[in-house]
Amino acid sequence: MSETRIHHEDLRIFAQQVIMKMGASEEDAFYVADNLVTSNLRGIDSHGVGRLKRYVEGIRTGYILPQAKPLVVRNSPVIANINAMNGLGQPSGVFGMKVAIEKCLGAGVGIATVFDSNHYGFAGYYAMMALEHDLIGISMTNSEPLVVPTFSRNAMIGTNPIAFVAPTKTERTWVMDLATSVVPSGKLEVYDRKGQSIPLGWATDETGKSTENPSQVLKNLYRGLGEGGIFPLGGEGELHGGHKGYGLATMVDILCGVISGGNYLRDLKFFKEGKPSHPRIGHFFMALDPSYFIDIDSFKTRMDDMIVRLKNAERAEGQGRIFVHGEKEFEEQDLREEKGIPLDERTVESLTEFSREFSIDLKFIESN
Amino acid sequence: MSETRIHHEDLRIFAQQVIMKMGASEEDAFYVADNLVTSNLRGIDSHGVGRLKRYVEGIRTGYILPQAKPLVVRNSPVIANINAMNGLGQPSGVFGMKVAIEKCLGAGVGIATVFDSNHYGFAGYYAMMALEHDLIGISMTNSEPLVVPTFSRNAMIGTNPIAFVAPTKTERTWVMDLATSVVPSGKLEVYDRKGQSIPLGWATDETGKSTENPSQVLKNLYRGLGEGGIFPLGGEGELHGGHKGYGLATMVDILCGVISGGNYLRDLKFFKEGKPSHPRIGHFFMALDPSYFIDIDSFKTRMDDMIVRLKNAERAEGQGRIFVHGEKEFEEQDLREEKGIPLDERTVESLTEFSREFSIDLKFIESN
Repeated sequence: MSETRIHHEDLRIFAQQVIMKMGASEEDAFYVADNLVTSNLRGIDSHGVGRLKRYVEGIRTGYILPQAKPLVVRNSPVIANINAMNGLGQPSGVFGMKVAIEKCLGAGVGIATVFDSNHYGFAGYYAMMALEHDLIGISMTNSEPLVVPTFSRNAMIGTNPIAFVAPTKTERTWVMDLATSVVPSGKLEVYDRKGQSIPLGWATDETGKSTENPSQVLKNLYRGLGEGGIFPLGGEGELHGGHKGYGLATMVDILCGVISGGNYLRDLKFFKEGKPSHPRIGHFFMALDPSYFIDIDSFKTRMDDMIVRLKNAERAEGQGRIFVHGEKEFEEQDLREEKGIPLDERTVESLTEFSREFSIDLKFIESN
Repeated sequence: MSETRIHHEDLRIFAQQVIMKMGASEEDAFYVADNLVTSNLRGIDSHGVGRLKRYVEGIRTGYILPQAKPLVVRNSPVIANINAMNGLGQPSGVFGMKVAIEKCLGAGVGIATVFDSNHYGFAGYYAMMALEHDLIGISMTNSEPLVVPTFSRNAMIGTNPIAFVAPTKTERTWVMDLATSVVPSGKLEVYDRKGQSIPLGWATDETGKSTENPSQVLKNLYRGLGEGGIFPLGGEGELHGGHKGYGLATMVDILCGVISGGNYLRDLKFFKEGKPSHPRIGHFFMALDPSYFIDIDSFKTRMDDMIVRLKNAERAEGQGRIFVHGEKEFEEQDLREEKGIPLDERTVESLTEFSREFSIDLKFIESN
């Protein structure tokens, strides 16, 4: 079995050039590329350069405007609301998080919402920007409707992720980044490609009941009828707390869509009645300064202590290791920075196509 | 089958008098009683007056100091950190949320953490205080270790609830209040009393693997060895996202315990090595003003619209109704305000005992 790998820096430059060819500035294209490649580095390939194709299509279709510049429409010492003008999600997100951090450095907390934006990649990217200032970072986004509310058979809500990160002293930073659904849609795609059935409790077809058939779920979602979808974190019904995931996903939609003036629930679609449409996605960013509560050194030492105690908890029978959030991803990043990023066949194809079309050099790692 | 009911106002006054007899001021005792009775009214009996006995015991044992007054130890225009001086959780919580609201009314956001506190009852109580000012309210608390991190067999973290509420225009307010575990411990007790087995995926015994035996789980937890416990939201392992609930519970512990200087993880115990100990519980309160992002009328109208759309989503096969968060509890409250609060036998006994001991009138509703 041959495996294609690419050095992360080469991949970032390549992706950046593709987005620049689509009309974005060098800086804006950098954020798109850096977000995607960082996701690959951290092992979250569902949000990696495989997405590049969708962004290019979004620009070509017209629902992403690559030259749009974000505009602050409401501003106060700790809060801003920002119109992304239907621009690329990543530069809009970076802009929003920078505003939140700047306000936080002045007041101890800063919040920025962004509306009329696009898919912003992986949520943790923005939250982690807070770390270099020793701040807690929070990032959320709403997204296209893929998740069914408890007891419904309609995809009404996005997988609406929450990222929360906190600085540490000697341990690696604590990085939580989770979709509020049981699984991301990418996981269904993986099972579907392998022809495997999915565990009951992950997703539903048009009946609203749990199914083992990923193809049917994906087919329904792609047809855009919103029949069936992924269950919220906690699964089907209320027995294992599915209403809690449904609540958290709705909370994210309130903080990203309802409060910002952007879209929420089923309005978050790239196509409406077959025609391309700005999804008008919303994001929520917050930075919080621990030094307003307790000495920063004490906070970071306590974070270390918490992390060490969690890692050293006794293992369940048959388990080898207890992880803290972010740990797996940092280890994967170390590995991939050294060995390169492995790419699946479909992604290699789409990158090769871009290379030809835009005449941009594409250099994979020679296997020997 | 006889059922004992009591009028909520009578119950509140009774509970308030009990706490006053234990040395608390009239106002502080009011908040304890009002929190417990409001929880009963909303149908959350696990956090109702059944808890009164534990508070009385906590005061007698000495880990709750009923005359303590909270002290603001760090203060800035938008953030405060408050030492509860090991006082009752409810007055400390109300104090903290009031500080957060006051700051929010000045700046658009206000945050207060409270440390060295005690059990504060149900989390939504404090978040809902924001509603009368048309603010979003957030409330979290850490709590005694009952939850196992993913892949561990040790109860390391609390059921650490998150409450988030948002104002509306004509619909009832959106009130989310959830433990970050699959179920609260009270649910295991209900199954245990009935001699029923629990669904796999709720809890684990000393092996760290899922069990159907609630007695064993509870026995381990009560022995205080921290062997086994409840699974985080998402259940056992990572297959259904248990690591996400583990992450959310840890996030709550960071915001309540680590940042405030209070206890976190397994330090949150009422007894250490058999001796009574201040648990030094921490809370996190936040108020956020939607009018800093968008016109408040528009926000409330959009909340209404979101709620109506969720309620009107198509039902899954065999399901009768889709709920939004808070809806069930408001309906229960209407019912119980009219018909009285039903009390289980054990609670009736403990109230009757207090009535005798403290010579306080206790008046149940006459059934006819």
